[in-house]
Amino acid sequence: MKQRIAFIGVGLIGGSLALAVRQAGLYDEICGFDSDLDNLQLALELGVIDDAMSSIHEILESAQLVVIATPVGVIKPVLQAIKPYWNSDCVYTDVGSTKQSVIHDLQDVFGELPANFVPGHPVAGTEQSGSGAAFAELYRNKHVILTPGQSTSESAVQRVRELWGQGAGAIVNEMPADHHDQILAATSHLPHIAAFALVNLLSKNNDDLDYSRFTAGGFKDFTRIASSDSEMWSDICLANREYLLPLLKDYQRELDHLLSCLKQGDKQQLMSRFSNARKTRQHLVGGNIDQSRNTTVETT
Amino acid sequence: MKQRIAFIGVGLIGGSLALAVRQAGLYDEICGFDSDLDNLQLALELGVIDDAMSSIHEILESAQLVVIATPVGVIKPVLQAIKPYWNSDCVYTDVGSTKQSVIHDLQDVFGELPANFVPGHPVAGTEQSGSGAAFAELYRNKHVILTPGQSTSESAVQRVRELWGQGAGAIVNEMPADHHDQILAATSHLPHIAAFALVNLLSKNNDDLDYSRFTAGGFKDFTRIASSDSEMWSDICLANREYLLPLLKDYQRELDHLLSCLKQGDKQQLMSRFSNARKTRQHLVGGNIDQSRNTTVETT
Repeated sequence: MKQRIAFIGVGLIGGSLALAVRQAGLYDEICGFDSDLDNLQLALELGVIDDAMSSIHEILESAQLVVIATPVGVIKPVLQAIKPYWNSDCVYTDVGSTKQSVIHDLQDVFGELPANFVPGHPVAGTEQSGSGAAFAELYRNKHVILTPGQSTSESAVQRVRELWGQGAGAIVNEMPADHHDQILAATSHLPHIAAFALVNLLSKNNDDLDYSRFTAGGFKDFTRIASSDSEMWSDICLANREYLLPLLKDYQRELDHLLSCLKQGDKQQLMSRFSNARKTRQHLVGGNIDQSRNTTVETT
Repeated sequence: MKQRIAFIGVGLIGGSLALAVRQAGLYDEICGFDSDLDNLQLALELGVIDDAMSSIHEILESAQLVVIATPVGVIKPVLQAIKPYWNSDCVYTDVGSTKQSVIHDLQDVFGELPANFVPGHPVAGTEQSGSGAAFAELYRNKHVILTPGQSTSESAVQRVRELWGQGAGAIVNEMPADHHDQILAATSHLPHIAAFALVNLLSKNNDDLDYSRFTAGGFKDFTRIASSDSEMWSDICLANREYLLPLLKDYQRELDHLLSCLKQGDKQQLMSRFSNARKTRQHLVGGNIDQSRNTTVETT
């Protein structure tokens, strides 16, 4: 029997996985569905997929593995659309940025977490989107997090492990969904909130001050994520607010502390907070500690 | 008479300007002083400077232009050290990240803003430091801000304009010092505070959660500036707290607003704040709006 993998959503994330799977020769046939017909057509022309399906039920016929590669905000309607064609011999997975919300969506739609659905999230991406930006190496040596539940079948987990590991060269991790959501709240969701908020400040005074001429590299890097898609990130932040809200309060407390150090002119406290951050980042990101602009050698 | 330029501090900033000036042939002789003797020796070996001086008074002899290329936190002691050798025929400038503080330092040391001192700040840099990292193109087409006062002589301003313009290929701007400090508070100083605070959060829970494996590109970019030198940035933030404090309060207000949107599940408000940030960044930084990781094509 021909082994067939189906992608619902062939953007950067789904398309890159499709290309990797083809390179690895993991499936005989790769088909895709996308509500953006131009993107679907492009995916076909670029050889990202072998078959472009015009409806969801078509794509589900005789697929051994279905990857839902849509933003987390639209996974529930996708689940509702595929439920009538649900195949218990098929394995399903997703790439959503939050995992408890996907599990809730599954419970809402199916009344349980189906044994053949393995929630997943690749911690990787680029600044591009669409199947035109997809490339097979996107996930190589990147981390993918799977959050199977008690009821998830081991064979289903194995098939999704194989997909990301042998198929895409990724490092596959397993952890509880709440653990995943807690980590991503800190490393991704809060940073987005912080960057969106910061850039919004600048929209207020820009007309008088014309900041635009004076935004150095540090600002560009710091705010890059503030260019992220606003609907997708509203969905992600709302989906993970259980962990995002307390973190955001901690963040404000830390800012309060720095604010009072500034008020009191407490250089020692500021330095200890700043150098703690510097050490922490080196530990988290690794490599050499890099320097900000206009770091010059002390002359006294 | 030989035209001589002298650098107090030959790190990345001073050293790069020295190399640019040499390339432009703007001065006959380039000499330097640095309290870090290894760095000074390296600058000499690399041809960043022609002469390495062992004392500040030596360097001031017969120089037509003196560039104080030290962190803002040490400019005052440098001014005190050069005051006894002050030469009214010579032009002095600095590269400090805050400008009102430098003007206050000048007033403390000289009782006024000397007519032959032109406060300056190049809005440029790299992630490196030291004369070994210096390169002549660092300032090409980058902005430099000069903040002369009422008492500053026009000929002194012209000589510093020539230094950065013809000498380094930079775009030279003039504005009041408070205007400079207001802009940099928003585009550089507050982003540093926000990044330091964010990374400090992660130091708390990292042992349980091991964030380090799951920090994607967005996190690395967002927090790069949190690797900045803690003493230099404490000095900068304290020197500019007049403008930094109200901005930090505005930032907290914006975060409060986003927090209440999250609490209330107000997706429309979140989206409008996020897309406002997205548009603002595009306006400020220019170029295409880039996408965050796992942006996939909507399938519904």
